[in-house]
Amino acid sequence: MYPPPIENLIKQFSKFPTVGPRTAARFVFYLLRAPEEEVKKIIEGISNLKKEVKLCSFCFKPYTGKGNLCEICYDTTRDRTKICVVEKEMDLEAIEKTKKYNGLYFILGGTIPLLKKEPKKIRINELIERIKDPVIFHLFNASIQEIIIATNPTPEGDATANYLEKKLKPFNVRITKLGRGLPIGGELEYADEETLSEALERRK
Amino acid sequence: MYPPPIENLIKQFSKFPTVGPRTAARFVFYLLRAPEEEVKKIIEGISNLKKEVKLCSFCFKPYTGKGNLCEICYDTTRDRTKICVVEKEMDLEAIEKTKKYNGLYFILGGTIPLLKKEPKKIRINELIERIKDPVIFHLFNASIQEIIIATNPTPEGDATANYLEKKLKPFNVRITKLGRGLPIGGELEYADEETLSEALERRK
Repeated sequence: MYPPPIENLIKQFSKFPTVGPRTAARFVFYLLRAPEEEVKKIIEGISNLKKEVKLCSFCFKPYTGKGNLCEICYDTTRDRTKICVVEKEMDLEAIEKTKKYNGLYFILGGTIPLLKKEPKKIRINELIERIKDPVIFHLFNASIQEIIIATNPTPEGDATANYLEKKLKPFNVRITKLGRGLPIGGELEYADEETLSEALERRK
Repeated sequence: MYPPPIENLIKQFSKFPTVGPRTAARFVFYLLRAPEEEVKKIIEGISNLKKEVKLCSFCFKPYTGKGNLCEICYDTTRDRTKICVVEKEMDLEAIEKTKKYNGLYFILGGTIPLLKKEPKKIRINELIERIKDPVIFHLFNASIQEIIIATNPTPEGDATANYLEKKLKPFNVRITKLGRGLPIGGELEYADEETLSEALERRK
């Protein structure tokens, strides 16, 4: 057992994604060794985060600036008939980088847990709300015609995609999913069986 | 690119041990999603750390409490003729848990980098200072007779151990290293070659 101020911070850091108690302890000892100035910067960084960054009231993308919509939702040149549903912020950025998508997004904030029956914490109700009545989000006068479910090709992501598909069926929208197959630049030799099977099935 | 307050904090978290920019980004988005109360606790935890925790002026172990020595260095029942040199705080705790060691410690704060010629940042000069003249640290009237180099059995740890051995040779102290061999409870079948070779060499 370490002194209480250390144990306490280990507990806090252990809640961070991918961080267990051992890694959390390493973080604390890093901070203990770090110069005062460095620690100050981290504290300021965390404080400013919540002060300066808002979550878009339509898609939940973090943004700075005026209004209650992010720059994507605010942009009138984007195709507001499409919503691409992603698990997290970094997935949105990855899709934006392709420059092949001009619609809107919706950040679920995670996946449904595989072992529990009911999805928790992720923004499924919020998504349905937006599909039901996008007009209440002011800038939207077009109705949504396509929902692209872009969860990750993992068991959790797939379960979430299936669950969403069921939940969104009653609404009159086209539901699509990202294509599966060989990653560009990859070699057949190293592709896992499932990817290769999907690639075979989706051949054209 | 994310908004500046996010990019800034990603940069800070990327300096944490084992954390790359992708994981750092996940931390930032975790904080953005976390309730205000939770973020406050983290900020307080980090602030309190530097306020409440001191580093022992002999061994650099973090401690709370009065004086300028940690509870181990302060404890007169401990054998002050021995110093066990470890890479980091968690290694010290691991050795303490065995209850088989009653001497003092010294936390190096890392290993020497494998690719550079001169060791940097780790407390080799401080260690030499303590061996040269332990009396200046007040409570020590015995001279140090044994240095146990307990760096990790990794390439970096071994390089550091060898470097330390050379550096400490001029002082009239016995230098020992931790025994190598099969970990208790492990099976031969799963032991890596090097461990098994060491185990064979050290058979008795």
